[in-house]
Amino acid sequence: MGIERVNGDRLWSALMEIGRIGETHGGGCRRLALSEEDGRARDLFCRWAREAGCTVTVDAIGNIFARRDGTQRDAPAVAIGSHLDTVPTGGKFDGVYGVMAGLEVMRRLQELGLTTRLPVELVVWTNEEGARFSPMTMGSSVFTGDIALDFALSRHDPSGVSVGEALRRIGHAGEAPVGGRQFTAYLETHVEQGPLLKESGERIGVVTGSFMARYFVATIKGQAAHVGPTLMEQRHDAMVGASALVLEIDRIGRSRGRDGRSNAPHIELFPNVRGVIPEEVRLSCDVRHPDAGEVQAMEAELREACRRIAEERGVSIELEQYFEFGPINCHQSMNELIGETADLLDLPRRDILTVASHDAVPIMEYCPTALFFIPSETGISHNEKEYSTPEHCTDGANVLLNAVLRLAS
Amino acid sequence: MGIERVNGDRLWSALMEIGRIGETHGGGCRRLALSEEDGRARDLFCRWAREAGCTVTVDAIGNIFARRDGTQRDAPAVAIGSHLDTVPTGGKFDGVYGVMAGLEVMRRLQELGLTTRLPVELVVWTNEEGARFSPMTMGSSVFTGDIALDFALSRHDPSGVSVGEALRRIGHAGEAPVGGRQFTAYLETHVEQGPLLKESGERIGVVTGSFMARYFVATIKGQAAHVGPTLMEQRHDAMVGASALVLEIDRIGRSRGRDGRSNAPHIELFPNVRGVIPEEVRLSCDVRHPDAGEVQAMEAELREACRRIAEERGVSIELEQYFEFGPINCHQSMNELIGETADLLDLPRRDILTVASHDAVPIMEYCPTALFFIPSETGISHNEKEYSTPEHCTDGANVLLNAVLRLAS
Repeated sequence: MGIERVNGDRLWSALMEIGRIGETHGGGCRRLALSEEDGRARDLFCRWAREAGCTVTVDAIGNIFARRDGTQRDAPAVAIGSHLDTVPTGGKFDGVYGVMAGLEVMRRLQELGLTTRLPVELVVWTNEEGARFSPMTMGSSVFTGDIALDFALSRHDPSGVSVGEALRRIGHAGEAPVGGRQFTAYLETHVEQGPLLKESGERIGVVTGSFMARYFVATIKGQAAHVGPTLMEQRHDAMVGASALVLEIDRIGRSRGRDGRSNAPHIELFPNVRGVIPEEVRLSCDVRHPDAGEVQAMEAELREACRRIAEERGVSIELEQYFEFGPINCHQSMNELIGETADLLDLPRRDILTVASHDAVPIMEYCPTALFFIPSETGISHNEKEYSTPEHCTDGANVLLNAVLRLAS
Repeated sequence: MGIERVNGDRLWSALMEIGRIGETHGGGCRRLALSEEDGRARDLFCRWAREAGCTVTVDAIGNIFARRDGTQRDAPAVAIGSHLDTVPTGGKFDGVYGVMAGLEVMRRLQELGLTTRLPVELVVWTNEEGARFSPMTMGSSVFTGDIALDFALSRHDPSGVSVGEALRRIGHAGEAPVGGRQFTAYLETHVEQGPLLKESGERIGVVTGSFMARYFVATIKGQAAHVGPTLMEQRHDAMVGASALVLEIDRIGRSRGRDGRSNAPHIELFPNVRGVIPEEVRLSCDVRHPDAGEVQAMEAELREACRRIAEERGVSIELEQYFEFGPINCHQSMNELIGETADLLDLPRRDILTVASHDAVPIMEYCPTALFFIPSETGISHNEKEYSTPEHCTDGANVLLNAVLRLAS
């Protein structure tokens, strides 16, 4: 079986064109899930997919399936995919690169007049980022049954708009039932969101597993009081308690060197007015490490910090876990397929772990799944500066095309 | 000249009745400036004032003037007043007590059939708290010319509603020009917002001056990046920088014992989503002390903390002052009037400084002004637990009535 190659210029053009929807002044992209911009990007994707010979179906959580039939029409499809939504400070690659690489695969298959044995489906998953609506990987998790459809549709953004309402507004509340589509395998390519490939010089990162991540909300309760006459010794300031906790969370991740991560990126403060000592803070935080035992140790340090800070600062702190993922070992046969395909294409590769979740993570339990990375020039993502070169983008799409052909032929 | 006394039961009833507008489950009051609840409280006040024989005028910033003519109709009035708005975690006394004590004075004058020589005006100032619309003491500061009317009308709340629009919605965008009313004197009574009178046992606190307070916004800038793959050593986390600063601010106030105050009660975080390391934080903060030199020293420590934290945490921090008040020395003759009136009523009194601003603070530069406190049972305010006894409320209204009679007769 020979090697096929995508049209790298066409892939880059598509990536740049769809990146103008929600483009920011600094060249990044702000395309929050189910926003008007996300709706326009989805519409453009659907048009392109139909022009590439696909039939398009949207399910009730807004996942889009662009299908190219195979000679065995009823066989489970080979699925590829990613997401079009971004965080508020997003770049032009995270998520959308995987979708555009998949689109280029579909275009190339059409151009070559190739009919595969198995159907091929390109999926756009709804709300991977979880930035506007929590939780993240929403569309893929509803698809696999990890999250109930009704629960997901009722989640709302900070202004009170629900997922269901947002889907209707942009015309992507589909009629297809969620789930029930069988996949032979699922493949996802993504830009690396850190510096490791760039540092080590390989061009493909085969994701062999994931860090373990455990997510919490810390609720810090103090006492509202006037900021002026209330003596310092009388205070129970929830923001002072939360601040001490943020510093401890930062320290816990740093103490593990390059394998540790810890974050406290989201805060809600009540009443958050200039005349009142803060009464309550809700702080979202997480700890991550490749080793599950280390995550447990980090959690233990976090709980001890909560206890000590509550005592020292005269507040109460409750820590509640609301999510976790990993550690995951990816499917070895799928990793081997990606590795062999990279070797055929003469692309140096290395094994790598993912620290972030991706749609591929919930799908891993559903069918054989592969996730692989291309290098990031800046080592940064969720930032306007996010950048991968046209050559690296072409590399990933070539691996995707040839791996799909191997699975679907 | 004899001593007159208010009807304490009627005062307490009025205080409890108006406190039901915006009443919270815990017995406090949430009546944000120019909200629907504030509108209802203002309407009730206007009805009560008219029933007490006053004519009611509303100016363009919504300040309400309830006037009782004197025999010298064109002479400058003796003014009394306070505010009806509360913070989100408010109690039933802060601000509204001064208005209800003033109403009781008007009711008692009518009941006694007394016509004073000078007119008496009871003023409800708009938005003293600054909780929904910043800055605070808005109505009184526009009245004195310290803040421009257009500037004040264009301030907006977090949902984008302007002061001008909010005034129109509740029907309190008055037609009277702002300012230009001459006052012989201004008197304001308020519940103490701290524990000093309760601790020392006196029943009237004569405010002889104020703390000095200096207000800042610290803008902490980091770099947005993905919370997962971004190595801890690569991070520039604005929330970590802000948290270190909050702890330093808290330390600076505590290091001055009972005379120091420092606060960081209001925060804005961008983008404030779970997947992104915080890029920017705007932290409102202040330092206070009775001694201006100490305030300057506290500010110097704050600026040094900003410099050091920026370096240690890999962020930039800019500190911008946006407001200050004090130290103020109140009018000695007015303090003597309050002191003598308290003595006549056999009410033990002490001199006291105010740490918070009040409408009386901007008015101090406009005409001879007195501000005096009654004890707080809980030593706390801006909290549902705020409480002063009916007896203490009656004390303050008695001082107000007799001081008004001395000034206006």
